[in-house]
Amino acid sequence: MRSHVVLFGDSITEQSFKPNGWGSALANTYTRKVDVVVRGYGGYKSRWALFLLQTLLVGYTNPPVAVTIFFGANDAALLGRTSERQHVPVEEYKENLRKIVHHFKELSPAMLVVIIIPPPIDEEGRNEYARELSERTNEVTGVYAKQCIELAKELGVYSINLWSKMQETEGWQKKFLSSQVLRNCTFFYGDGLHLTAEGNAIVHEEVVRVFSEGGLDATQLASDYPHHSEIDPKNLEKSFQERSCTAGKNSKTT
Amino acid sequence: MRSHVVLFGDSITEQSFKPNGWGSALANTYTRKVDVVVRGYGGYKSRWALFLLQTLLVGYTNPPVAVTIFFGANDAALLGRTSERQHVPVEEYKENLRKIVHHFKELSPAMLVVIIIPPPIDEEGRNEYARELSERTNEVTGVYAKQCIELAKELGVYSINLWSKMQETEGWQKKFLSSQVLRNCTFFYGDGLHLTAEGNAIVHEEVVRVFSEGGLDATQLASDYPHHSEIDPKNLEKSFQERSCTAGKNSKTT
Repeated sequence: MRSHVVLFGDSITEQSFKPNGWGSALANTYTRKVDVVVRGYGGYKSRWALFLLQTLLVGYTNPPVAVTIFFGANDAALLGRTSERQHVPVEEYKENLRKIVHHFKELSPAMLVVIIIPPPIDEEGRNEYARELSERTNEVTGVYAKQCIELAKELGVYSINLWSKMQETEGWQKKFLSSQVLRNCTFFYGDGLHLTAEGNAIVHEEVVRVFSEGGLDATQLASDYPHHSEIDPKNLEKSFQERSCTAGKNSKTT
Repeated sequence: MRSHVVLFGDSITEQSFKPNGWGSALANTYTRKVDVVVRGYGGYKSRWALFLLQTLLVGYTNPPVAVTIFFGANDAALLGRTSERQHVPVEEYKENLRKIVHHFKELSPAMLVVIIIPPPIDEEGRNEYARELSERTNEVTGVYAKQCIELAKELGVYSINLWSKMQETEGWQKKFLSSQVLRNCTFFYGDGLHLTAEGNAIVHEEVVRVFSEGGLDATQLASDYPHHSEIDPKNLEKSFQERSCTAGKNSKTT
């Protein structure tokens, strides 16, 4: 039986299957080993996410082996500006995340839980997109990020600190966060908040690293069913009975 | 409960979550509506695929609402050349596909079954890859393609004729099928059999078209849970009870 991981979050998770997205890259990394189930909800904040938990995974007989929890980009929207309905006070945000982690750990104490800290904000890009005073600032998002990290430590679960990690690279603003650009007569959409291809690549790399640390290393997991080169045409029944024999091998093509 | 579709096939299905792949594009098209479950097995031919059917979808409580069945690129490998262990006689190939269709229809008579006819072969690209006489020819793959189409008609299921469709475009060989290229000091892998980004785009378009004809039109399906703009902050319980209210709307971002 193929196990599955769940990506639970806001639009940065929902959009993870767009071209160059971190979700599809993850599905490709775990091909024939683990299914990647997307549960991304654009515009959602942690308070609203709580309402989804009870019905999120109806239809699966077993709990996931891992989950990424990736909220906060909306919670950190400022009060008194255009996106204030997405705002959640930082103390409540932390408690909401705690409830989400508890929910998954109750489903299965062995589940690998990874909190992803929201990425930084490119305020210049955000201002261009909003055409007025940005409703998110990098500083405030940093306050929310800090609560995420503390919570992960308190609960003893893994975390990925995108907010800090991305800012280590010079030019992170345009390199990792999308911006509105007119290039070769083509308009590229961007908002200083969602990820570029390079930004998506970082999320993918980090999730693979943390999953591997947590025991979910794609290079060590068994493929479902034998590799085609290991199928004995004269003994098909036997080949398919010994289906776990490809553990630790990367799948080859054609 | 989120329904799901299954992509069942060989390496062209397994690789459908690589960058620009048709599988991840499909997952993006059906975001928040239908899960896309990949069951692609590089190098597999229809005879071997039969051994997977009974255990392919263990872990899902309900059958999929649709399935794509995409075998034949390996079955059509020529006898007496390097890939002959992948060869399946064309009559047997047709019967194997029939068994696969029956299996899914028995799981659920309402299931939307789509047979995808293998793509054409760029023999020049294939020869360069094989470094000897190609073990697949476009003509022979065409014979297998014809059997696919006949079978789909016999069984009254949908089909996508990639073999013909791709050849309608001038320069289809290099446009839709990957080839080995050295460009800007970078080596691009290719084998005249697997798909380029444009080739993947055609598969995606065709699957979306046929799914829509068969009643699975992403623009008409309900999202799971309300769009963020429809959530009433003063009446959260009610907002989440009326979760089917977003039917027919495309999900927006953030």
